[in-house]
Amino acid sequence: MKIGNSRFARQIGFILEIDKLKQIFRQTCILDKSRRENSVEHSWHISIMALIFSEYANSKKIDLFRVIKMLLVHDLVEIDAGDTFCYDQQARMNQLEREVEAANRLFKLLPEDQAVEFESLWNEFEECKTPSAKFANALDRIQPLISNYYSDGLIWRKNAIKSYQIKARNYDIMEIAPKLRKYASELIEEALSRGILEE
Amino acid sequence: MKIGNSRFARQIGFILEIDKLKQIFRQTCILDKSRRENSVEHSWHISIMALIFSEYANSKKIDLFRVIKMLLVHDLVEIDAGDTFCYDQQARMNQLEREVEAANRLFKLLPEDQAVEFESLWNEFEECKTPSAKFANALDRIQPLISNYYSDGLIWRKNAIKSYQIKARNYDIMEIAPKLRKYASELIEEALSRGILEE
Repeated sequence: MKIGNSRFARQIGFILEIDKLKQIFRQTCILDKSRRENSVEHSWHISIMALIFSEYANSKKIDLFRVIKMLLVHDLVEIDAGDTFCYDQQARMNQLEREVEAANRLFKLLPEDQAVEFESLWNEFEECKTPSAKFANALDRIQPLISNYYSDGLIWRKNAIKSYQIKARNYDIMEIAPKLRKYASELIEEALSRGILEE
Repeated sequence: MKIGNSRFARQIGFILEIDKLKQIFRQTCILDKSRRENSVEHSWHISIMALIFSEYANSKKIDLFRVIKMLLVHDLVEIDAGDTFCYDQQARMNQLEREVEAANRLFKLLPEDQAVEFESLWNEFEECKTPSAKFANALDRIQPLISNYYSDGLIWRKNAIKSYQIKARNYDIMEIAPKLRKYASELIEEALSRGILEE
């Protein structure tokens, strides 16, 4: 079917394009350890976590709907830029550049007003300054930590990740939700004592 | 780690449990036709479609946040009940029974107030009476139609689906969004003329 360039055609074009995120696989496994998780699954999981954990945010200024919109779209840029493993220092060097380029192409498939809306959601998430963005980022961080712990540290062990790396990457961002930060810390201590994570 | 029975422990237990939805595969393929789509991917895709297509709902009474909450949770019952192919009349006979049982087990993993909230989202979606639920259902229907069309009718052909079955299943529900209903009708006509769908 000819797609054309009408408003509706551009929306359909975008909806077809984002199907590709289903094929972007992350380092983290799904819990039964049968395969890696993709970025769509991760985005859905943390969107539901936002519904369940919003009571733990220590700010009244959180707009939960906006948190969920950010979480739904935050990984779309990986369609072009790929998933960058957070402990791969080399890949992270040009990550932002790759992702900005991806955002420029992808969101512009949409009609202009919606392109602006999606880009603003992605920017807010990336800048991580508003309470909503901070809470969204905290969820983005704790979900793989939970998955890695409950899949017996498979990915930590495979990549020889150290506990100080996880702490450095996660603790500050989780300050928006002290209960989650405390839980993250318990998981790390427990992982150390189970020997599935190195000091 | 011992999960226990505190409020937080029940929330974590639920979040671990719903990981299983990533292994519930639907009939529909992802667009590159390499594999079937799972119910998590479907839920994420229609949540983003809600953001993009809300302008086409013919009711001012749509609560878009509630639409998205319904879409995020609407398939969770499939963790126990499995995905029921919509054109499998035999499987559909006891579908509701299986899904109600699943809802009873799954949502009750959550603390009571959240169990009530999730169950109410699922019930509203299933009853399909409010404008928000109708719009959510319209998206739930049009996404596989788009995917099936753009994967060359692979699933329609494999299951010898007829165009009247698709129309009967979808047109009424899509009345809430005439633009989407018209698009669905165009896709079906085009599929017929391409020979990827039977009359």
